Amino acid sequence: MNKIIQCVPNFSEGRDLDKIEQIVSAFRGKNGLKLLDYSNDEDHNRVVVTLVGEPEPLKAAIVEAVGTAIRLIDMTKHEGQHPRMGAVDVIPFIPIKNVTMDECIELSKAVAQALYEAYELPSFLYEKSASAPHRENLAKLRKGQFEGMAEKVKEEEWKPDFGVAIHKTAGITAIGARMPLVAFNVNLNTNDIEIANKIAKNVRHLSGGLRYCKAIGIELEDRGIVQVSMNMTDFTKTPLYRAFELIRVEAMRYGVTIVGSEIIGLVPMDALIGTAEFYLGVEDFSHEQVLEKRIME
Amino acid sequence: MNKIIQCVPNFSEGRDLDKIEQIVSAFRGKNGLKLLDYSNDEDHNRVVVTLVGEPEPLKAAIVEAVGTAIRLIDMTKHEGQHPRMGAVDVIPFIPIKNVTMDECIELSKAVAQALYEAYELPSFLYEKSASAPHRENLAKLRKGQFEGMAEKVKEEEWKPDFGVAIHKTAGITAIGARMPLVAFNVNLNTNDIEIANKIAKNVRHLSGGLRYCKAIGIELEDRGIVQVSMNMTDFTKTPLYRAFELIRVEAMRYGVTIVGSEIIGLVPMDALIGTAEFYLGVEDFSHEQVLEKRIME
Repeated sequence: MNKIIQCVPNFSEGRDLDKIEQIVSAFRGKNGLKLLDYSNDEDHNRVVVTLVGEPEPLKAAIVEAVGTAIRLIDMTKHEGQHPRMGAVDVIPFIPIKNVTMDECIELSKAVAQALYEAYELPSFLYEKSASAPHRENLAKLRKGQFEGMAEKVKEEEWKPDFGVAIHKTAGITAIGARMPLVAFNVNLNTNDIEIANKIAKNVRHLSGGLRYCKAIGIELEDRGIVQVSMNMTDFTKTPLYRAFELIRVEAMRYGVTIVGSEIIGLVPMDALIGTAEFYLGVEDFSHEQVLEKRIME
Repeated sequence: MNKIIQCVPNFSEGRDLDKIEQIVSAFRGKNGLKLLDYSNDEDHNRVVVTLVGEPEPLKAAIVEAVGTAIRLIDMTKHEGQHPRMGAVDVIPFIPIKNVTMDECIELSKAVAQALYEAYELPSFLYEKSASAPHRENLAKLRKGQFEGMAEKVKEEEWKPDFGVAIHKTAGITAIGARMPLVAFNVNLNTNDIEIANKIAKNVRHLSGGLRYCKAIGIELEDRGIVQVSMNMTDFTKTPLYRAFELIRVEAMRYGVTIVGSEIIGLVPMDALIGTAEFYLGVEDFSHEQVLEKRIME
Protein backbone atom coordinates (compact mmCIF):
# COMPACT_ATOMS: atom_id res chain seq x y z
CA MET A 1 0.00 0.00 0.00
CA ASN A 2 1.35 3.40 -0.98
CA LYS A 3 -1.22 5.74 0.58
CA ILE A 4 -2.53 4.49 3.90
CA ILE A 5 -5.69 5.74 5.54
CA GLN A 6 -6.99 4.26 8.77
CA CYS A 7 -10.72 3.82 9.22
CA VAL A 8 -12.52 2.90 12.46
CA PRO A 9 -16.19 2.35 11.67
CA ASN A 10 -18.50 1.66 14.61
CA PHE A 11 -21.48 -0.61 13.97
CA SER A 12 -24.43 -0.90 16.37
CA GLU A 13 -24.30 -4.67 16.82
CA GLY A 14 -22.25 -6.13 19.67
CA ARG A 15 -24.15 -9.29 20.56
CA ASP A 16 -24.95 -11.36 17.49
CA LEU A 17 -21.58 -12.76 16.42
CA ASP A 18 -22.97 -14.11 13.17
CA LYS A 19 -24.19 -10.67 12.12
CA ILE A 20 -20.86 -9.13 13.16
CA GLU A 21 -18.98 -11.63 10.98
CA GLN A 22 -21.23 -10.85 8.04
CA ILE A 23 -20.52 -7.12 8.38
CA VAL A 24 -16.77 -7.57 8.88
CA SER A 25 -16.48 -9.98 5.95
CA ALA A 26 -16.50 -6.94 3.62
CA PHE A 27 -13.01 -6.13 4.97
CA ARG A 28 -11.44 -9.54 4.41
CA GLY A 29 -9.36 -10.67 1.45
CA LYS A 30 -9.45 -7.35 -0.42
CA ASN A 31 -6.45 -5.89 -2.24
CA GLY A 32 -5.24 -2.56 -0.87
CA LEU A 33 -7.05 -3.12 2.40
CA LYS A 34 -6.16 -4.69 5.72
CA LEU A 35 -8.42 -5.54 8.64
CA LEU A 36 -6.36 -4.88 11.80
CA ASP A 37 -8.84 -5.51 14.55
CA TYR A 38 -12.49 -5.68 15.54
CA SER A 39 -13.90 -5.97 19.02
CA ASN A 40 -17.48 -6.11 20.12
CA ASP A 41 -18.90 -5.07 23.46
CA GLU A 42 -22.14 -6.72 24.56
CA ASP A 43 -23.06 -4.00 27.07
CA HIS A 44 -22.46 -1.30 24.48
CA ASN A 45 -24.08 -3.52 21.83
CA ARG A 46 -21.51 -2.19 19.38
CA VAL A 47 -18.54 -3.41 17.38
CA VAL A 48 -15.52 -1.20 16.67
CA VAL A 49 -13.58 -2.19 13.54
CA THR A 50 -10.06 -0.98 12.73
CA LEU A 51 -8.80 -1.21 9.18
CA VAL A 52 -6.23 0.47 6.97
CA GLY A 53 -6.24 0.81 3.24
CA GLU A 54 -5.78 2.88 0.15
CA PRO A 55 -8.59 5.38 -0.52
CA GLU A 56 -10.50 3.56 -3.27
CA PRO A 57 -10.48 0.01 -1.83
CA LEU A 58 -11.38 1.49 1.55
CA LYS A 59 -14.36 3.34 0.08
CA ALA A 60 -15.63 0.26 -1.77
CA ALA A 61 -15.35 -1.97 1.30
CA ILE A 62 -17.04 0.56 3.58
CA VAL A 63 -19.96 0.88 1.15
CA GLU A 64 -20.28 -2.91 1.10
CA ALA A 65 -20.09 -3.28 4.91
CA VAL A 66 -22.59 -0.48 5.50
CA GLY A 67 -25.00 -2.19 3.10
CA THR A 68 -24.77 -5.37 5.16
CA ALA A 69 -25.19 -3.43 8.41
CA ILE A 70 -28.31 -1.66 7.15
CA ARG A 71 -29.77 -5.03 6.12
CA LEU A 72 -29.01 -6.69 9.48
CA ILE A 73 -29.46 -3.95 12.09
CA ASP A 74 -32.80 -2.44 13.03
CA MET A 75 -32.25 0.60 15.25
CA THR A 76 -35.90 0.70 16.28
CA LYS A 77 -35.10 -2.45 18.30
CA HIS A 78 -31.55 -1.55 19.37
CA GLU A 79 -30.53 -1.07 22.99
CA GLY A 80 -27.11 -0.60 24.52
CA GLN A 81 -25.19 1.56 26.99
CA HIS A 82 -23.16 3.45 24.40
CA PRO A 83 -24.81 6.53 22.84
CA ARG A 84 -25.66 5.85 19.18
CA MET A 85 -27.68 7.36 16.38
CA GLY A 86 -27.35 4.84 13.56
CA ALA A 87 -26.83 1.24 12.51
CA VAL A 88 -23.43 2.55 11.43
CA ASP A 89 -22.84 5.10 14.11
CA VAL A 90 -19.63 6.75 13.00
CA ILE A 91 -17.03 6.36 10.23
CA PRO A 92 -13.79 8.29 10.86
CA PHE A 93 -10.96 8.47 8.31
CA ILE A 94 -7.45 9.06 9.64
CA PRO A 95 -4.33 9.94 7.59
CA ILE A 96 -1.47 7.52 8.29
CA LYS A 97 1.03 7.48 5.44
CA ASN A 98 1.55 9.56 2.26
CA VAL A 99 -1.90 11.05 2.74
CA THR A 100 -2.98 14.54 3.75
CA MET A 101 -5.88 15.48 5.97
CA ASP A 102 -7.47 17.10 2.91
CA GLU A 103 -7.47 13.77 1.11
CA CYS A 104 -9.18 12.18 4.09
CA ILE A 105 -11.80 14.94 4.12
CA GLU A 106 -12.39 14.38 0.41
CA LEU A 107 -12.72 10.63 0.97
CA SER A 108 -15.19 11.13 3.83
CA LYS A 109 -17.41 13.25 1.58
CA ALA A 110 -17.17 10.76 -1.28
CA VAL A 111 -18.15 7.93 1.08
CA ALA A 112 -21.04 9.95 2.53
CA GLN A 113 -22.32 10.65 -0.96
CA ALA A 114 -21.92 7.02 -2.08
CA LEU A 115 -23.83 5.78 0.99
CA TYR A 116 -26.66 8.16 0.29
CA GLU A 117 -26.82 7.14 -3.36
CA ALA A 118 -26.66 3.41 -2.60
CA TYR A 119 -28.92 3.17 0.45
CA GLU A 120 -30.48 6.61 1.03
CA LEU A 121 -28.50 6.64 4.27
CA PRO A 122 -28.22 10.23 5.53
CA SER A 123 -25.09 11.51 7.25
CA PHE A 124 -23.51 14.32 9.21
CA LEU A 125 -19.98 15.35 8.22
CA TYR A 126 -18.04 15.80 11.47
CA GLU A 127 -14.58 16.71 12.85
CA LYS A 128 -12.31 18.09 10.09
CA SER A 129 -15.01 17.39 7.47
CA ALA A 130 -17.69 19.37 9.33
CA SER A 131 -19.63 22.00 7.37
CA ALA A 132 -19.75 24.32 10.41
CA PRO A 133 -17.87 24.59 13.72
CA HIS A 134 -20.89 23.55 15.83
CA ARG A 135 -21.00 20.28 13.86
CA GLU A 136 -17.41 19.17 14.55
CA ASN A 137 -18.06 17.42 17.84
CA LEU A 138 -19.50 13.90 17.59
CA ALA A 139 -21.12 14.01 21.03
CA LYS A 140 -23.11 17.13 20.09
CA LEU A 141 -24.23 15.62 16.79
CA ARG A 142 -25.29 12.42 18.52
CA LYS A 143 -27.18 14.12 21.34
CA GLY A 144 -30.79 12.89 21.36
CA GLN A 145 -29.59 9.58 19.93
CA PHE A 146 -31.47 7.45 17.41
CA GLU A 147 -34.79 7.97 19.17
CA GLY A 148 -34.59 11.78 18.98
CA MET A 149 -32.92 12.04 15.60
CA ALA A 150 -36.01 12.09 13.37
CA GLU A 151 -37.05 15.38 15.03
CA LYS A 152 -33.53 16.80 15.48
CA VAL A 153 -32.66 16.71 11.76
CA LYS A 154 -35.63 18.94 11.02
CA GLU A 155 -33.86 21.83 12.81
CA GLU A 156 -31.86 24.02 10.43
CA GLU A 157 -28.65 23.70 12.45
CA TRP A 158 -28.85 19.89 12.48
CA LYS A 159 -29.86 19.36 8.87
CA PRO A 160 -27.90 16.35 7.53
CA ASP A 161 -25.06 17.05 5.07
CA PHE A 162 -26.39 14.22 2.89
CA GLY A 163 -30.07 13.36 2.85
CA VAL A 164 -32.96 15.07 4.61
CA ALA A 165 -34.76 12.67 6.94
CA ILE A 166 -33.27 9.79 8.88
CA HIS A 167 -33.28 6.24 7.53
CA LYS A 168 -36.19 4.45 9.22
CA THR A 169 -34.20 1.51 10.57
CA ALA A 170 -30.58 2.68 10.15
CA GLY A 171 -30.86 6.24 11.50
CA ILE A 172 -28.02 8.53 10.53
CA THR A 173 -24.24 8.24 10.42
CA ALA A 174 -21.42 10.65 11.33
CA ILE A 175 -18.66 10.56 8.70
CA GLY A 176 -15.48 12.59 8.80
CA ALA A 177 -11.73 12.95 8.86
CA ARG A 178 -9.73 13.31 12.04
CA MET A 179 -6.26 12.88 13.44
CA PRO A 180 -5.36 9.58 15.15
CA LEU A 181 -6.53 9.44 18.75
CA VAL A 182 -4.16 8.14 21.40
CA ALA A 183 -5.80 6.86 24.58
CA PHE A 184 -3.18 7.70 27.20
CA ASN A 185 -3.76 7.28 30.95
CA VAL A 186 -1.46 8.39 33.75
CA ASN A 187 -1.65 6.67 37.15
CA LEU A 188 -1.11 8.53 40.45
CA ASN A 189 -0.05 7.22 43.86
CA THR A 190 -3.20 8.34 45.63
CA ASN A 191 -6.71 6.96 46.00
CA ASP A 192 -8.22 10.46 46.10
CA ILE A 193 -10.41 10.83 43.01
CA GLU A 194 -10.71 14.55 43.66
CA ILE A 195 -6.99 14.96 42.95
CA ALA A 196 -7.30 13.09 39.64
CA ASN A 197 -10.32 15.22 38.73
CA LYS A 198 -8.52 18.46 39.51
CA ILE A 199 -5.44 17.48 37.54
CA ALA A 200 -7.61 16.31 34.61
CA LYS A 201 -9.34 19.68 34.67
CA ASN A 202 -6.00 21.50 34.59
CA VAL A 203 -4.46 19.58 31.69
CA ARG A 204 -7.47 19.35 29.38
CA HIS A 205 -8.29 21.84 26.65
CA LEU A 206 -11.87 22.41 27.77
CA SER A 207 -10.90 24.06 31.04
CA GLY A 208 -7.67 25.89 30.15
CA GLY A 209 -5.13 23.12 29.54
CA LEU A 210 -3.50 21.62 26.49
CA ARG A 211 -5.09 22.24 23.09
CA TYR A 212 -5.40 18.61 21.92
CA CYS A 213 -6.11 16.87 25.21
CA LYS A 214 -9.35 15.58 26.70
CA ALA A 215 -9.11 14.31 30.27
CA ILE A 216 -11.17 12.93 33.15
CA GLY A 217 -10.34 11.46 36.56
CA ILE A 218 -10.95 7.73 37.01
CA GLU A 219 -10.72 5.43 40.04
CA LEU A 220 -8.82 2.16 39.62
CA GLU A 221 -10.56 0.49 42.52
CA ASP A 222 -8.75 -2.85 42.40
CA ARG A 223 -5.38 -1.07 42.67
CA GLY A 224 -6.52 1.56 45.16
CA ILE A 225 -5.21 4.41 43.00
CA VAL A 226 -6.61 7.00 40.62
CA GLN A 227 -5.84 7.87 37.05
CA VAL A 228 -5.95 10.83 34.72
CA SER A 229 -7.54 9.24 31.65
CA MET A 230 -6.85 11.16 28.45
CA ASN A 231 -7.66 11.21 24.77
CA MET A 232 -4.83 12.91 22.93
CA THR A 233 -6.66 14.20 19.86
CA ASP A 234 -3.62 15.40 17.89
CA PHE A 235 -0.30 14.07 19.14
CA THR A 236 1.56 15.94 16.38
CA LYS A 237 0.58 19.22 18.06
CA THR A 238 0.12 18.18 21.69
CA PRO A 239 2.64 15.38 22.20
CA LEU A 240 2.29 12.71 24.88
CA TYR A 241 5.30 13.88 26.87
CA ARG A 242 3.77 17.35 27.31
CA ALA A 243 0.65 15.97 28.97
CA PHE A 244 2.77 13.57 31.04
CA GLU A 245 5.14 16.27 32.30
CA LEU A 246 2.30 18.68 32.99
CA ILE A 247 0.52 16.05 35.08
CA ARG A 248 3.76 15.45 36.96
CA VAL A 249 3.98 19.16 37.82
CA GLU A 250 0.29 19.54 38.68
CA ALA A 251 0.51 16.45 40.92
CA MET A 252 3.42 17.92 42.91
CA ARG A 253 1.05 20.45 44.38
CA TYR A 254 -0.84 17.62 46.09
CA GLY A 255 2.33 15.79 47.14
CA VAL A 256 1.39 13.11 44.64
CA THR A 257 3.65 11.41 42.08
CA ILE A 258 3.11 9.47 38.88
CA VAL A 259 3.41 5.71 39.28
CA GLY A 260 2.99 4.70 35.65
CA SER A 261 0.92 5.11 32.53
CA GLU A 262 -1.07 3.13 29.99
CA ILE A 263 -1.59 3.33 26.27
CA ILE A 264 -4.87 1.71 25.30
CA GLY A 265 -5.30 0.23 21.82
CA LEU A 266 -3.30 1.19 18.78
CA VAL A 267 -0.82 4.07 18.73
CA PRO A 268 0.99 5.51 15.72
CA MET A 269 4.76 4.93 15.83
CA ASP A 270 5.43 8.66 15.48
CA ALA A 271 3.74 9.41 18.80
CA LEU A 272 6.29 7.22 20.60
CA ILE A 273 9.28 8.21 18.49
CA GLY A 274 8.53 11.87 19.20
CA THR A 275 8.51 11.04 22.91
CA ALA A 276 11.92 9.35 22.69
CA GLU A 277 13.31 12.31 20.72
CA PHE A 278 12.16 14.71 23.42
CA TYR A 279 13.62 12.87 26.39
CA LEU A 280 16.92 12.10 24.68
CA GLY A 281 17.11 15.63 23.24
CA VAL A 282 17.86 14.19 19.81
CA GLU A 283 19.00 16.87 17.32
CA ASP A 284 18.23 16.79 13.57
CA PHE A 285 16.51 13.42 13.62
CA SER A 286 14.51 12.42 10.58
CA HIS A 287 11.85 9.76 10.95
CA GLU A 288 13.24 8.40 7.69
CA GLN A 289 16.08 7.06 9.86
CA VAL A 290 13.67 4.57 11.43
CA LEU A 291 14.43 1.25 9.79
CA GLU A 292 10.82 0.07 9.68
CA LYS A 293 9.71 3.31 7.99
CA ARG A 294 12.23 2.67 5.24
CA ILE A 295 11.10 -0.91 4.87
CA MET A 296 7.45 0.18 4.60
CA GLU A 297 8.15 2.73 1.86
CA MET B 1 8.28 -9.86 3.19
CA ASN B 2 7.47 -12.17 6.08
CA LYS B 3 10.92 -12.81 7.58
CA ILE B 4 13.15 -9.74 7.41
CA ILE B 5 16.92 -9.83 7.81
CA GLN B 6 19.03 -6.73 7.43
CA CYS B 7 22.41 -7.02 5.72
CA VAL B 8 25.10 -4.32 5.60
CA PRO B 9 27.87 -5.53 3.28
CA ASN B 10 30.98 -3.31 3.00
CA PHE B 11 32.79 -3.32 -0.35
CA SER B 12 36.31 -1.93 -0.79
CA GLU B 13 35.49 0.53 -3.58
CA GLY B 14 34.53 4.10 -2.73
CA ARG B 15 35.81 6.09 -5.71
CA ASP B 16 34.75 4.52 -9.00
CA LEU B 17 31.01 5.20 -9.17
CA ASP B 18 30.58 2.98 -12.21
CA LYS B 19 32.03 -0.01 -10.37
CA ILE B 20 29.89 0.78 -7.32
CA GLU B 21 26.74 0.81 -9.46
CA GLN B 22 27.68 -2.54 -11.00
CA ILE B 23 28.09 -4.08 -7.54
CA VAL B 24 24.89 -2.57 -6.14
CA SER B 25 22.84 -3.57 -9.20
CA ALA B 26 22.60 -7.09 -7.73
CA PHE B 27 20.31 -5.62 -5.07
CA ARG B 28 17.87 -3.86 -7.39
CA GLY B 29 14.55 -5.16 -8.69
CA LYS B 30 14.63 -8.46 -6.83
CA ASN B 31 11.60 -10.04 -5.18
CA GLY B 32 11.90 -10.43 -1.40
CA LEU B 33 14.71 -7.89 -1.25
CA LYS B 34 14.92 -4.14 -0.75
CA LEU B 35 17.93 -1.86 -1.15
CA LEU B 36 17.58 0.80 1.57
CA ASP B 37 20.77 2.80 1.18
CA TYR B 38 24.34 2.83 -0.05
CA SER B 39 26.93 5.46 0.62
CA ASN B 40 30.52 5.56 -0.53
CA ASP B 41 33.41 7.37 1.12
CA GLU B 42 36.32 8.38 -1.10
CA ASP B 43 38.81 8.72 1.76
CA HIS B 44 37.86 5.33 3.11
CA ASN B 45 37.64 4.00 -0.46
CA ARG B 46 34.68 1.91 0.64
CA VAL B 47 30.95 1.64 0.07
CA VAL B 48 28.52 0.59 2.79
CA VAL B 49 25.28 -0.95 1.49
CA THR B 50 22.14 -1.42 3.59
CA LEU B 51 19.51 -3.86 2.44
CA VAL B 52 16.73 -5.95 3.91
CA GLY B 53 15.28 -9.16 2.63
CA GLU B 54 14.07 -12.65 3.18
CA PRO B 55 16.84 -15.21 3.77
CA GLU B 56 16.97 -16.91 0.36
CA PRO B 57 16.70 -13.83 -1.91
CA LEU B 58 19.25 -12.10 0.34
CA LYS B 59 21.68 -14.98 -0.02
CA ALA B 60 21.32 -15.12 -3.80
CA ALA B 61 21.82 -11.38 -4.21
CA ILE B 62 24.84 -11.30 -1.91
CA VAL B 63 26.48 -14.12 -3.85
CA GLU B 64 25.85 -12.19 -7.09
CA ALA B 65 27.18 -8.87 -5.72
CA VAL B 66 30.27 -10.49 -4.24
CA GLY B 67 31.01 -12.08 -7.63
CA THR B 68 30.89 -8.64 -9.23
CA ALA B 69 33.08 -7.14 -6.50
CA ILE B 70 35.71 -9.87 -6.89
CA ARG B 71 35.78 -9.23 -10.62
CA LEU B 72 36.11 -5.44 -10.26
CA ILE B 73 38.22 -4.92 -7.14
CA ASP B 74 41.93 -5.76 -6.92
CA MET B 75 43.06 -5.48 -3.32
CA THR B 76 46.73 -5.55 -4.30
CA LYS B 77 46.14 -2.03 -5.66
CA HIS B 78 43.66 -0.82 -3.01
CA GLU B 79 44.39 2.08 -0.71
CA GLY B 80 42.11 3.88 1.73
CA GLN B 81 41.97 5.15 5.31
CA HIS B 82 39.56 2.52 6.60
CA PRO B 83 41.09 -0.78 7.76
CA ARG B 84 40.15 -3.58 5.31
CA MET B 85 41.14 -7.14 4.52
CA GLY B 86 39.07 -7.98 1.45
CA ALA B 87 37.31 -6.75 -1.68
CA VAL B 88 34.20 -7.54 0.33
CA ASP B 89 35.38 -6.60 3.78
CA VAL B 90 32.50 -7.64 5.96
CA ILE B 91 28.95 -9.05 5.58
CA PRO B 92 26.83 -8.81 8.73
CA PHE B 93 23.32 -10.31 8.99
CA ILE B 94 20.94 -8.73 11.48
CA PRO B 95 17.55 -10.11 12.63
CA ILE B 96 14.75 -7.57 12.14
CA LYS B 97 11.36 -9.28 11.95
CA ASN B 98 10.08 -12.84 12.50
CA VAL B 99 13.67 -14.07 12.49
CA THR B 100 15.87 -15.41 15.28
CA MET B 101 19.56 -14.79 15.78
CA ASP B 102 20.09 -18.52 15.14
CA GLU B 103 18.53 -18.17 11.70
CA CYS B 104 20.93 -15.29 10.94
CA ILE B 105 23.87 -17.40 12.10
CA GLU B 106 22.71 -20.22 9.87
CA LEU B 107 22.35 -17.83 6.92
CA SER B 108 25.83 -16.36 7.51
CA LYS B 109 27.35 -19.85 7.36
CA ALA B 110 25.37 -20.76 4.25
CA VAL B 111 26.53 -17.56 2.54
CA ALA B 112 30.16 -18.14 3.57
CA GLN B 113 30.00 -21.65 2.14
CA ALA B 114 28.32 -20.49 -1.08
CA LEU B 115 30.97 -17.79 -1.59
CA TYR B 116 33.74 -20.32 -1.14
CA GLU B 117 32.12 -22.75 -3.55
CA ALA B 118 31.40 -20.09 -6.18
CA TYR B 119 34.59 -18.04 -6.04
CA GLU B 120 37.03 -19.79 -3.67
CA LEU B 121 36.64 -16.73 -1.48
CA PRO B 122 37.77 -17.57 2.08
CA SER B 123 36.04 -16.14 5.14
CA PHE B 124 36.12 -15.71 8.88
CA LEU B 125 32.85 -16.22 10.75
CA TYR B 126 32.60 -13.38 13.28
CA GLU B 127 30.37 -11.95 16.03
CA LYS B 128 27.55 -14.38 16.93
CA SER B 129 28.67 -16.75 14.16
CA ALA B 130 32.28 -16.96 15.42
CA SER B 131 33.78 -20.41 15.90
CA ALA B 132 35.71 -19.27 19.00
CA PRO B 133 35.50 -16.29 21.38
CA HIS B 134 38.78 -14.74 20.17
CA ARG B 135 37.29 -14.58 16.66
CA GLU B 136 34.14 -12.60 17.55
CA ASN B 137 35.68 -9.13 17.25
CA LEU B 138 36.00 -7.77 13.70
CA ALA B 139 38.89 -5.43 14.55
CA LYS B 140 40.97 -8.34 15.86
CA LEU B 141 40.23 -10.46 12.78
CA ARG B 142 41.13 -7.60 10.48
CA LYS B 143 44.36 -6.68 12.26
CA GLY B 144 47.25 -6.84 9.77
CA GLN B 145 44.81 -5.90 7.01
CA PHE B 146 44.90 -7.25 3.46
CA GLU B 147 48.65 -6.90 3.21
CA GLY B 148 49.33 -9.06 6.29
CA MET B 149 46.51 -11.53 5.80
CA ALA B 150 48.32 -14.11 3.61
CA GLU B 151 50.69 -14.80 6.53
CA LYS B 152 48.12 -14.35 9.33
CA VAL B 153 45.78 -17.10 8.07
CA LYS B 154 48.64 -19.62 8.33
CA GLU B 155 48.51 -19.31 12.12
CA GLU B 156 46.28 -21.93 13.72
CA GLU B 157 44.23 -19.39 15.66
CA TRP B 158 43.51 -17.34 12.50
CA LYS B 159 42.77 -20.22 10.15
CA PRO B 160 39.77 -19.20 7.99
CA ASP B 161 36.43 -20.88 8.70
CA PHE B 162 36.01 -21.44 4.96
CA GLY B 163 39.04 -21.90 2.69
CA VAL B 164 42.71 -22.09 3.63
CA ALA B 165 44.70 -19.31 1.92
CA ILE B 166 43.49 -15.82 1.02
CA HIS B 167 42.09 -15.01 -2.41
CA LYS B 168 44.94 -13.36 -4.34
CA THR B 169 43.04 -10.22 -5.34
CA ALA B 170 39.98 -10.33 -3.08
CA GLY B 171 41.65 -11.23 0.24
CA ILE B 172 39.27 -12.58 2.87
CA THR B 173 35.83 -11.61 4.17
CA ALA B 174 34.30 -11.52 7.66
CA ILE B 175 30.77 -12.94 7.65
CA GLY B 176 28.50 -13.20 10.64
CA ALA B 177 25.31 -12.47 12.51
CA ARG B 178 24.96 -9.62 14.96
CA MET B 179 22.36 -7.42 16.65
CA PRO B 180 21.50 -4.07 15.07
CA LEU B 181 24.00 -1.33 15.97
CA VAL B 182 22.68 2.07 17.01
CA ALA B 183 25.14 4.96 16.62
CA PHE B 184 24.12 7.25 19.48
CA ASN B 185 26.08 10.37 20.45
CA VAL B 186 25.49 12.59 23.46
CA ASN B 187 26.66 16.23 23.41
CA LEU B 188 28.00 18.02 26.51
CA ASN B 189 28.17 21.73 27.31
CA THR B 190 31.95 21.83 27.64
CA ASN B 191 34.86 22.01 25.22
CA ASP B 192 37.05 19.86 27.47
CA ILE B 193 37.75 16.63 25.58
CA GLU B 194 39.18 15.08 28.73
CA ILE B 195 35.73 15.18 30.32
CA ALA B 196 34.19 13.44 27.30
CA ASN B 197 36.96 10.84 27.38
CA LYS B 198 36.48 10.16 31.09
CA ILE B 199 32.71 9.82 30.75
CA ALA B 200 33.12 7.57 27.69
CA LYS B 201 35.47 5.38 29.71
CA ASN B 202 32.94 5.15 32.54
CA VAL B 203 29.92 4.20 30.43
CA ARG B 204 31.56 1.74 28.02
CA HIS B 205 31.73 -2.01 28.57
CA LEU B 206 35.48 -2.26 28.01
CA SER B 207 36.37 -0.28 31.11
CA GLY B 208 33.61 -1.20 33.55
CA GLY B 209 30.46 0.39 32.11
CA LEU B 210 27.40 -0.90 30.30
CA ARG B 211 27.53 -4.36 28.75
CA TYR B 212 26.46 -3.43 25.18
CA CYS B 213 28.04 0.01 24.85
CA LYS B 214 31.20 1.13 23.08
CA ALA B 215 32.17 4.78 23.64
CA ILE B 216 34.86 7.34 22.89
CA GLY B 217 35.19 11.09 23.45
CA ILE B 218 35.02 13.31 20.36
CA GLU B 219 35.54 17.05 19.84
CA LEU B 220 32.90 18.93 17.81
CA GLU B 221 35.28 21.77 16.95
CA ASP B 222 32.84 23.89 14.95
CA ARG B 223 30.40 23.94 17.87
CA GLY B 224 33.06 24.27 20.57
CA ILE B 225 31.68 21.32 22.51
CA VAL B 226 32.53 17.67 23.06
CA GLN B 227 30.58 14.49 22.60
CA VAL B 228 30.41 10.98 23.99
CA SER B 229 30.17 8.97 20.77
CA MET B 230 28.68 5.51 21.27
CA ASN B 231 27.89 2.33 19.45
CA MET B 232 25.03 0.58 21.21
CA THR B 233 25.67 -3.03 20.24
CA ASP B 234 22.46 -4.55 21.63
CA PHE B 235 19.75 -2.04 22.46
CA THR B 236 17.43 -4.83 23.58
CA LYS B 237 19.74 -5.45 26.55
CA THR B 238 21.42 -2.06 27.03
CA PRO B 239 18.74 0.46 26.02
CA LEU B 240 19.55 3.98 24.82
CA TYR B 241 18.02 5.68 27.86
CA ARG B 242 20.35 3.80 30.20
CA ALA B 243 23.46 5.15 28.49
CA PHE B 244 21.88 8.62 28.29
CA GLU B 245 20.95 8.74 31.98
CA LEU B 246 24.32 7.32 33.04
CA ILE B 247 26.12 10.02 31.04
CA ARG B 248 23.93 12.63 32.69
CA VAL B 249 24.96 11.38 36.12
CA GLU B 250 28.65 11.00 35.26
CA ALA B 251 28.65 14.53 33.80
CA MET B 252 27.28 16.03 37.03
CA ARG B 253 30.58 15.31 38.71
CA TYR B 254 32.27 17.78 36.34
CA GLY B 255 29.48 20.36 36.59
CA VAL B 256 28.62 19.54 32.99
CA THR B 257 25.18 18.92 31.50
CA ILE B 258 23.85 17.24 28.37
CA VAL B 259 22.85 19.65 25.60
CA GLY B 260 21.50 17.16 23.11
CA SER B 261 22.12 13.93 21.28
CA GLU B 262 22.34 12.46 17.80
CA ILE B 263 21.29 9.21 16.21
CA ILE B 264 23.39 8.52 13.13
CA GLY B 265 21.98 6.40 10.31
CA LEU B 266 19.19 3.89 10.66
CA VAL B 267 17.68 2.89 13.98
CA PRO B 268 15.18 0.11 14.66
CA MET B 269 11.79 1.41 15.78
CA ASP B 270 11.92 -0.72 18.94
CA ALA B 271 14.97 1.18 20.21
CA LEU B 272 12.95 4.41 20.25
CA ILE B 273 9.68 2.87 21.40
CA GLY B 274 11.53 1.31 24.36
CA THR B 275 12.87 4.75 25.23
CA ALA B 276 9.38 6.29 25.17
CA GLU B 277 8.05 3.44 27.32
CA PHE B 278 10.74 4.06 29.92
CA TYR B 279 10.26 7.80 30.27
CA LEU B 280 6.46 7.62 30.31
CA GLY B 281 6.54 4.61 32.65
CA VAL B 282 4.10 2.77 30.38
CA GLU B 283 2.70 -0.39 31.96
CA ASP B 284 1.82 -3.57 30.03
CA PHE B 285 2.54 -2.13 26.62
CA SER B 286 2.81 -4.55 23.71
CA HIS B 287 4.67 -3.46 20.62
CA GLU B 288 1.75 -5.03 18.74
CA GLN B 289 -0.15 -1.88 19.72
CA VAL B 290 2.04 0.15 17.36
CA LEU B 291 -0.10 0.79 14.31
CA GLU B 292 2.76 0.48 11.81
CA LYS B 293 3.80 -2.89 13.27
CA ARG B 294 0.30 -4.17 12.66
CA ILE B 295 0.29 -2.82 9.14
CA MET B 296 3.65 -4.48 8.38
CA GLU B 297 2.50 -7.89 9.59
